[in-house]
Amino acid sequence: MSKAIPDSVTRLIEAFSRLPGIGPKTASRLTYFLLRAPEDVSTTLAGAISELKSKTRLCKVCFNITEEEVCGLCRDERRDAKLIAVVEEPLDVLAIERAGIYNGRYHVLHGVLNPREGIFAENLKIKELVERVRSEAITELILSTNPGMEGDATATYIKDELSRAGVTVKITRLARGLPTGADLEHADAATVMRALEGRQNL
Amino acid sequence: MSKAIPDSVTRLIEAFSRLPGIGPKTASRLTYFLLRAPEDVSTTLAGAISELKSKTRLCKVCFNITEEEVCGLCRDERRDAKLIAVVEEPLDVLAIERAGIYNGRYHVLHGVLNPREGIFAENLKIKELVERVRSEAITELILSTNPGMEGDATATYIKDELSRAGVTVKITRLARGLPTGADLEHADAATVMRALEGRQNL
Repeated sequence: MSKAIPDSVTRLIEAFSRLPGIGPKTASRLTYFLLRAPEDVSTTLAGAISELKSKTRLCKVCFNITEEEVCGLCRDERRDAKLIAVVEEPLDVLAIERAGIYNGRYHVLHGVLNPREGIFAENLKIKELVERVRSEAITELILSTNPGMEGDATATYIKDELSRAGVTVKITRLARGLPTGADLEHADAATVMRALEGRQNL
Repeated sequence: MSKAIPDSVTRLIEAFSRLPGIGPKTASRLTYFLLRAPEDVSTTLAGAISELKSKTRLCKVCFNITEEEVCGLCRDERRDAKLIAVVEEPLDVLAIERAGIYNGRYHVLHGVLNPREGIFAENLKIKELVERVRSEAITELILSTNPGMEGDATATYIKDELSRAGVTVKITRLARGLPTGADLEHADAATVMRALEGRQNL
């Protein structure tokens, strides 16, 4: 059969398909959109992708993504340097910033413990966290890994590591319960259990 | 507030958000995926996007996307040159090829008539189609624009244009009815109406 699509089109469809959540149908749709869109749409996109890796690196203090050696959040003197929120990914930093009430620093682990997928403590920025808590005057660590088996296990592991290292610091975990706007009727059992356990005086 | 995301990250999130069906959340997810993925994933993607426009053009016969002056489908001597399927978009060529039973040529209109969005006959490859039918020995035109108001109107317009041009050719339209695997119970009224009108002897 003769080719219905040229190689350059197939190559882009394949490249898009390697992105998470993008199947072959979406990949074709995006490719044909770019074919029809003004030249600068593809130029801008290609340029931004190329620059992404070359311009960014991990902050040497908190391991968030940054263009400098130390990120803006770590350099911001108005933020409380004694308080660290420990998160899994850079996007979690954004989520906490969006809440608008946190004024401490961060520490990005770049994952959670997941032995089955070959992710162990040495693949995460845990040793760096322990060192940071030991050397800086930290008063509280808010372990903000996701609620769930792996996030919980990672939080527990960090707590144990700090205690093994003989570092004393207040350690907290984000509250669990019903999300704002949720329907009690449709909430899963684990969430309702946590909401009951964590109930507060009114 | 200090910046939680570096500019190069924001730029890529924005570039991804300009693609159809990609909201800000998906755009962030894709960007952070590329940040963590091996270098060659982004290099390949950026390269494929850059090459897309520079390497491709429209076939001068059928206006499908190609890397040559005349596309592979038009150059394939084994295909019936007397039969033309008229489609809206290059992706429609693929859809018909996938069916595996069509052995004619194509003509890509690059859209359908849509006066409200400023798409008129002169914005589509209709004049070129009439010219092609006039100059080549075409026996049948399968008007394969999408079933629906605009696709139907475009098909009717093409039929009228051919008759105004004094060109005689057999003109057909793709059959309409229940899609394979459909539930009659859930089919919309217009589809059931077409299925009844087009019913066949068993």
